[in-house]
Amino acid sequence: MTQKLVAGLEPPYYTALFTSIRPDAPEGYAETASRMQEIVKEIPGFLGYEAARTPGGIGITVAYFRDLESLDAWRLDTEHQAAKTYGREHWYDSYSVHIGKVERSYSFERE
Amino acid sequence: MTQKLVAGLEPPYYTALFTSIRPDAPEGYAETASRMQEIVKEIPGFLGYEAARTPGGIGITVAYFRDLESLDAWRLDTEHQAAKTYGREHWYDSYSVHIGKVERSYSFERE
Repeated sequence: MTQKLVAGLEPPYYTALFTSIRPDAPEGYAETASRMQEIVKEIPGFLGYEAARTPGGIGITVAYFRDLESLDAWRLDTEHQAAKTYGREHWYDSYSVHIGKVERSYSFERE
Repeated sequence: MTQKLVAGLEPPYYTALFTSIRPDAPEGYAETASRMQEIVKEIPGFLGYEAARTPGGIGITVAYFRDLESLDAWRLDTEHQAAKTYGREHWYDSYSVHIGKVERSYSFERE
């Protein structure tokens, strides 16, 4: 799936940065990832997300939120929490989550 | 190249999040990327980086810094600036940079 970059956001906004190492295609992963992408879009204040994964290497996903309240709504979503618990038990070798506040950003797009 | 995740950082710290779309293997890219990884490690306050790229899709790189001063030292490094200019002219279709301050983070590692 080719995505477009999330661009043109007005600071301040928040990022939930998720970096992980897992096997390439664990059972059930694709369905859950697709469902998570569906429900995060319903969170008021969700501004977009980007995901990248080097085959056999690291995966990085970043979700953008208008404020901490919208980020926390996503963090505490019960279906999301269940997916995280399942992921720790079945999919991930390791992951980190970094919650950041963005005060500066810029974008480049080729003419 | 399999990396290890950057984990166990003590907030607060800063992230330079770089998301991009470019052709798979443009001429000169690999050499420059490797050189940038070399010189960023010399910046005092640099804490590590992670990179992921879905073939044919989005690339995401995140570099971690102790403070804004170390992040700015990297941003203003002359060799880095020359690489960015070259990249805009030759490699990237689009990119975004988001500078964030991390106040909360956590990590998981399978036993």
